[in-house]
Amino acid sequence: MARGSSSRRSSSRDAMRKKRGASSGIKQPPWRGTMENRFPPMEPLSADQLEAIHEATLDLLEQHGIEAMGDEALDLYQGAGATVDRSTGMVKMDRDLVMELVGKAPSSFKLTPRNPDRTITLGGNGINFGLVSGPPNVHDCINGRRPGNWDDYLKLVKFAQFFNCITVLGNQAVAPVDLPANIRHMDTTKANVVYTDKMFNHQLIGAGRARDSVEIVARGRGLSVEDMIDDPSCIGNINVNSPRKLDEHMATGAIAMAELGQATIVTPFTLMGAMTPVTMAAGLVQQNAEALFGIALTQIVRPGVPVVYGGFTSNVDMKSGAPAFGTPENAKANLAGGQLARRYNLPYRTSGCNASNCVDAQATYETFMSLWGAVMGYGNIIYHSAGWLEGGLVASFEKVIVDVEIIQHMSAMLDPINTDPDEIDVAAITTVDPGGHFFGSDHTMARYETAFYPPILSDWTNSEQWLLEGAQDATQRATVLWQRVLEEYEQPPLEQDRLESIEAYMAKRVEEIGSGEP
Amino acid sequence: MARGSSSRRSSSRDAMRKKRGASSGIKQPPWRGTMENRFPPMEPLSADQLEAIHEATLDLLEQHGIEAMGDEALDLYQGAGATVDRSTGMVKMDRDLVMELVGKAPSSFKLTPRNPDRTITLGGNGINFGLVSGPPNVHDCINGRRPGNWDDYLKLVKFAQFFNCITVLGNQAVAPVDLPANIRHMDTTKANVVYTDKMFNHQLIGAGRARDSVEIVARGRGLSVEDMIDDPSCIGNINVNSPRKLDEHMATGAIAMAELGQATIVTPFTLMGAMTPVTMAAGLVQQNAEALFGIALTQIVRPGVPVVYGGFTSNVDMKSGAPAFGTPENAKANLAGGQLARRYNLPYRTSGCNASNCVDAQATYETFMSLWGAVMGYGNIIYHSAGWLEGGLVASFEKVIVDVEIIQHMSAMLDPINTDPDEIDVAAITTVDPGGHFFGSDHTMARYETAFYPPILSDWTNSEQWLLEGAQDATQRATVLWQRVLEEYEQPPLEQDRLESIEAYMAKRVEEIGSGEP
Repeated sequence: MARGSSSRRSSSRDAMRKKRGASSGIKQPPWRGTMENRFPPMEPLSADQLEAIHEATLDLLEQHGIEAMGDEALDLYQGAGATVDRSTGMVKMDRDLVMELVGKAPSSFKLTPRNPDRTITLGGNGINFGLVSGPPNVHDCINGRRPGNWDDYLKLVKFAQFFNCITVLGNQAVAPVDLPANIRHMDTTKANVVYTDKMFNHQLIGAGRARDSVEIVARGRGLSVEDMIDDPSCIGNINVNSPRKLDEHMATGAIAMAELGQATIVTPFTLMGAMTPVTMAAGLVQQNAEALFGIALTQIVRPGVPVVYGGFTSNVDMKSGAPAFGTPENAKANLAGGQLARRYNLPYRTSGCNASNCVDAQATYETFMSLWGAVMGYGNIIYHSAGWLEGGLVASFEKVIVDVEIIQHMSAMLDPINTDPDEIDVAAITTVDPGGHFFGSDHTMARYETAFYPPILSDWTNSEQWLLEGAQDATQRATVLWQRVLEEYEQPPLEQDRLESIEAYMAKRVEEIGSGEP
Repeated sequence: MARGSSSRRSSSRDAMRKKRGASSGIKQPPWRGTMENRFPPMEPLSADQLEAIHEATLDLLEQHGIEAMGDEALDLYQGAGATVDRSTGMVKMDRDLVMELVGKAPSSFKLTPRNPDRTITLGGNGINFGLVSGPPNVHDCINGRRPGNWDDYLKLVKFAQFFNCITVLGNQAVAPVDLPANIRHMDTTKANVVYTDKMFNHQLIGAGRARDSVEIVARGRGLSVEDMIDDPSCIGNINVNSPRKLDEHMATGAIAMAELGQATIVTPFTLMGAMTPVTMAAGLVQQNAEALFGIALTQIVRPGVPVVYGGFTSNVDMKSGAPAFGTPENAKANLAGGQLARRYNLPYRTSGCNASNCVDAQATYETFMSLWGAVMGYGNIIYHSAGWLEGGLVASFEKVIVDVEIIQHMSAMLDPINTDPDEIDVAAITTVDPGGHFFGSDHTMARYETAFYPPILSDWTNSEQWLLEGAQDATQRATVLWQRVLEEYEQPPLEQDRLESIEAYMAKRVEEIGSGEP
């Protein structure tokens, strides 16, 4: 990570570029930040159905409750007026209390990474596509399937920095299991700050990890942790242990983030048929109750702190019990989750995912299903948009490329149509005789370079040419492309004093908590 | 095609089924006919933009016109009040005339094939998915790429009959080039009637072919051609030779269909940058003008005859001139085309397509893009929904399977969510303790077999199992599946006298027009 070695890489990269010719760089749409979805959201629930789910949710929270683990969370719920059974950890909240607490959260907020040009907005019709988050394994078609490691972690981070359509990284694109588990969160956070200048998700397993990464981000911005309280730079996800259990590490992680004024996403992981009842209506009630329960906790700690309604409702294969993703039910739940989030004026997190074992047609149609649901459900932050494979057990390099292509397609499709007079132009039509063609017309020549979205992965050559060139399918072409991304990647400059401050903090913390080495 | 050989095939099929066990049949959703899309359509054009395109369209038709070839069409346009230049074939229609003629067409109509249970509706929010139409070549992963032939034609027809989500066949799923070109339309029409009981598209290259296939369909229904005038059974597509030219064979095909009270789809084939200006606004104006021009012709022949607004606006690769399909522009044009069709209260035809050379991630995401636009644009009849590859140069058996899976996914996603009290059921949630699971609960056991959409192609096994079973990707599994479809296909019974009547008609026509043999 020394600057010298980075410079050497740069020179070598420049040489390779010259060799290939300047025009061979990967052409992608420019950075546009949070994408605006100008179409109305797709809403599978009628207003009455939405209210039925809402009321059943409040019944569940009021009459049955959810279990919270750990005195810190139980004390907070009790202090806010909830009924807490200390012997079981069950917390019941009456409907007014739930709505009062949830009502304190902002409907929209900004998150600013170390480069303020990379600020994103969470709320309304703004869509942010995030890199895959959390798989234990990594795969590419050169090196095969392997446990996550540090080198691959850095490659994935560079992919996310490279592609403009990715506005936020997940928490640990792959788990680098070659690093000690107790300090790994600091290494990954530092790498995110050093190798990207974009937003990323933090790991919220316990308050300590949450605080460490907030401290590192503050140093990356050249701010104090206090400076960031009303100018958040950090966001992390907690999962509810469905059904109806909030684990202590998750609760204390969220509490720490709220104390520091940073954002938490509360996501019940609700696979229908396994962690919820088999019906979508009951699955959504349970998701909703669990999400509101965690969201309420953040508002008890710090009213008005940014928080995101997370939904991750898919189903299992009822023949085998295997989890399934990108199913019609998953896509529909992604849409319905957006309705529920908007019901409470909360930003919404959802996901793109699939259960395929390789980067094939199944991986593609399942991802497209879930992403369609996510984008048309107004997923303000869409986890796992690029690179997720095998139901989240693998981060795939080729899948990153395929998914970026899908995201860029979707974004271009959602862009408005220009009907200004010189675009609609009847005269441009009539300059060409019936049965002729428009290839050489002035109207075409003035616009042809930017008229259409240029894909990075699609091959439109004819069959003969494609066979001559080796008959590579999209996955094989993706292998070529991710290698080129690593060549073309440019490290965003970081002030030396900020880097040193981060390293000093980490050294101090390693002294306090140990290096994890045996 | 003798009944005897068909029976022998049935017995062998039954034996194979027994061998595999009854449960190994391909499980698919039941026939539901025309699918209802309960979501509002996605509309990329504002009301003002739509009107701007509409007005520019009428300017084009009024001031510049479109060329029609052949005296029959020119006489009809002139007789209706259009200004016809006989030296150039240019036809100009004032805006009131256009709107008057287009206004005579029905907004919705039914089409009844020989099995009335297979009736489909074209209009409103009804969606019909059609098999690929017209490629000159066929491909499967066993026998490779080859020119279309009769045997493959029959296989494709059987796929369409087998899958319930396909409600209409295209015109010649592949061109059987081993049959004589001048009588091929009768063989394919007869095969459609014999091997399926569903709707299909007719070839409208000239009045003779159009009449022949209407005659054959009437015999398949046991009706006269006259009986079908107000009870249409036939639909065919004509393409405008864009820009702005209606060829004689297309015009006379449409005229014949209108005379016989049967439905025509009028589809300009408008690749932006080649056959239209490079801007989408101008491309849509040209598409709209060409479509309305052909639609008007049908209404001159027979006011009120069913007709469909066809749109097929995609773009070319401006670097190479190669056609591109399933692009963001194609998907968006599919949506905008629906707005234009609704502007004129006409049913809408659009397409699912892609430009990939093999059944890979590109084929899948491009198809998904175009189908998403088609489904959310209310494509009442979606051509090429299953099996199209290589920009329409190939009908692919594996792609049929992948596309059926995509269509079934989409249809399930668009189905409503049931929120009846026993579905929403808070008690079903609370029967399971926090952190437990729902696999064995009564609520699950009562519903698990039908709770979720069961895919035919997706493999949800874990990586270890998948590797053990041969690590087949979706395309390889599709090869297994299409062979099983051919084993499980059942020929829908057709009355012997109807078959004989069809064969007698064909024999008579072959005498009249020759067998095409050298």
